[in-house]
Amino acid sequence: MPGILKERLFTPGPTPLLMEAQARTLTATLHHRTESFRQLMKETSEHLRYFYNTKNDVLIFSCSGTGAMEGAMANLVSPGERILVGTAGKFGERWLDLAKAYGIEPVKIEAPYGRPLPMEEFERQLQSSGPFRAVFVQATESSTGVSHDIQTLGRLVGKYPETALVVDAITGLGTTALEPDGWGLDVVIGGSQKALMVPPGLAFASVSEKAWKLIERSKSPRYYFDFAKERKNQAKGETSYTPATTLVVSLHAALEYIRRVGRENLIENAATLARATREAALALGLKLFAQGSPANALTALCAPDGWDSGAIVKEMRQRFGAIVANGQGTMKGKIFRLAHLGYYDMPDLFAVLAALEITLHKLGHKCELGAGVRAAQHVYLERCA
Amino acid sequence: MPGILKERLFTPGPTPLLMEAQARTLTATLHHRTESFRQLMKETSEHLRYFYNTKNDVLIFSCSGTGAMEGAMANLVSPGERILVGTAGKFGERWLDLAKAYGIEPVKIEAPYGRPLPMEEFERQLQSSGPFRAVFVQATESSTGVSHDIQTLGRLVGKYPETALVVDAITGLGTTALEPDGWGLDVVIGGSQKALMVPPGLAFASVSEKAWKLIERSKSPRYYFDFAKERKNQAKGETSYTPATTLVVSLHAALEYIRRVGRENLIENAATLARATREAALALGLKLFAQGSPANALTALCAPDGWDSGAIVKEMRQRFGAIVANGQGTMKGKIFRLAHLGYYDMPDLFAVLAALEITLHKLGHKCELGAGVRAAQHVYLERCA
Repeated sequence: MPGILKERLFTPGPTPLLMEAQARTLTATLHHRTESFRQLMKETSEHLRYFYNTKNDVLIFSCSGTGAMEGAMANLVSPGERILVGTAGKFGERWLDLAKAYGIEPVKIEAPYGRPLPMEEFERQLQSSGPFRAVFVQATESSTGVSHDIQTLGRLVGKYPETALVVDAITGLGTTALEPDGWGLDVVIGGSQKALMVPPGLAFASVSEKAWKLIERSKSPRYYFDFAKERKNQAKGETSYTPATTLVVSLHAALEYIRRVGRENLIENAATLARATREAALALGLKLFAQGSPANALTALCAPDGWDSGAIVKEMRQRFGAIVANGQGTMKGKIFRLAHLGYYDMPDLFAVLAALEITLHKLGHKCELGAGVRAAQHVYLERCA
Repeated sequence: MPGILKERLFTPGPTPLLMEAQARTLTATLHHRTESFRQLMKETSEHLRYFYNTKNDVLIFSCSGTGAMEGAMANLVSPGERILVGTAGKFGERWLDLAKAYGIEPVKIEAPYGRPLPMEEFERQLQSSGPFRAVFVQATESSTGVSHDIQTLGRLVGKYPETALVVDAITGLGTTALEPDGWGLDVVIGGSQKALMVPPGLAFASVSEKAWKLIERSKSPRYYFDFAKERKNQAKGETSYTPATTLVVSLHAALEYIRRVGRENLIENAATLARATREAALALGLKLFAQGSPANALTALCAPDGWDSGAIVKEMRQRFGAIVANGQGTMKGKIFRLAHLGYYDMPDLFAVLAALEITLHKLGHKCELGAGVRAAQHVYLERCA
């Protein structure tokens, strides 16, 4: 249609920004070596502990999530030490790349794309071929839309005082109920551009007491991502290096909003959107890519047989300004992904589903117009009095 | 649902703001008595002429639309002179209030709420009981969702060189194809908070050469709304009094956006949204309030028999953050209104329709979930290849 076309972001990061948080950054006189910024940093750290649901330190880094992932590897593991890595998608594979970069030889536990990691295999490896310095996994694998059983893994790894559990929860936080302290998640990685509704540029790492002890021993080189140095500085509201100040201001405001909404409500919101999306997909004759344990953070949908999912992504963008994500790596062209991370509500979902129905219809996929929206409406009605 | 609830504006003004236009106002050093602001004013006037589709002067006032309506009355009509006023809703009645305030006795031509003004009645009055100094009407009556036949009225009034036609097109501009010059619309009133996507605070009046001649004769008192004084100043990019500077900056940016979209495409956009809304309403068993000649600017829907439309308005706001308008005056509680003015696209409509379906369902109105969305989708498919 000629006329108004609004851009709508449905990718699993970056996600829609919270405008009231963005607006707070509108100042020309922000400096990080000031008492007011130190106070802001301290409050932000406290808010992050609420968001994480942890009493552990949560360190703030000015970098993307990958930077904090690298930090976890470098701070915990020395060259030559053994680690376990769970991989079931593109982000699991990133742990392997990081290990390689640091001269660390990982033992891999794999699941096919679209499947959750097999916990019994972790148990077997931990028992039979340890000791491992650390275990690295994702809470939710954003490339496939699968959620892994981090609670069980926490219990398994918790038996080994010399082994840290490192969880990339970049898309897991704010979408999945996590208990870092109760479950024994020693390092949990987060990122600003996901459920936190803030632009990219900040990453986080919560660190347990168990992890701090192991960190003291690591001989891997690190400087920008030195967790111990950062802990010491951030306790005083300082950062070791210049922080991305406007992003911290935005994060502080977004976390205030999230405290008003409530962490559990934010998670429930994503869970409802995810369930409604799955029901809508089935009503439209689309297959879910995740076989078992679908994530709340996003839903990966298979393109109809013989179709290129890129055509759906392209039509959605051109017709409706709706930016949905294609598959990554070998999944490119086969799946497309709709995110539920952070600042989304039910009307957002109704809008994108109606647009998807038209897109499928136009491309020749037989489906009843309105059927996906109706399935999502029924999920809303079941959840809400 | 607990969780994220976004505010969504579907009222016939204020309307959703264009964020890129808002962002342009972020400066602390804006002053109106500068060459750069004069340049901005001149460009804005030129852009307004494009938006209006006129070669006439378009004056900019810092006030609401009502201010410019008052200006039209004061600048054109002297106490004791006769005028014709068309009234078919709350905004038509405002012309009567203005006439009264200025000691002018109007001849009324009325239509019941929900009906367009009878053009034959204007013709009869102009022929039989003239001369009239001016005729005052709305292009679209926002209280009832009706569009009046301004083109015909222009032809009728055009026969009388001593009679000006004043059109309140506050919600008509950008939603309805108007030809001020070809149709003989002598004064056309606009407002910033409608199809222009800008906050309230600016109003506009285009003035034809015929109107300028009549303005010279008017003895009614005016100062802030002195059209001739403003014409002289604005030709130089000046304003007689301090203008609302940030709103002018926002307007300038919004008009640049509208030029990129295209005036005709903006109008077509509203027309398609209005048609889709009407089809959706019928599919959901709701009656349209406008009987004949429904406006593109907004759609007024009747609450189901025996219902208070306020319950629908309240549920939409509480459940979905969707702000729709109740009826005004005696229409309050009987109708509710959904706007299509300015910065709306099809996914916006899909979202609000799905929310409306749930609201009606929850309140006990029997309708098929998804049916309204589907009807709107069909309108999209008919319009778009």
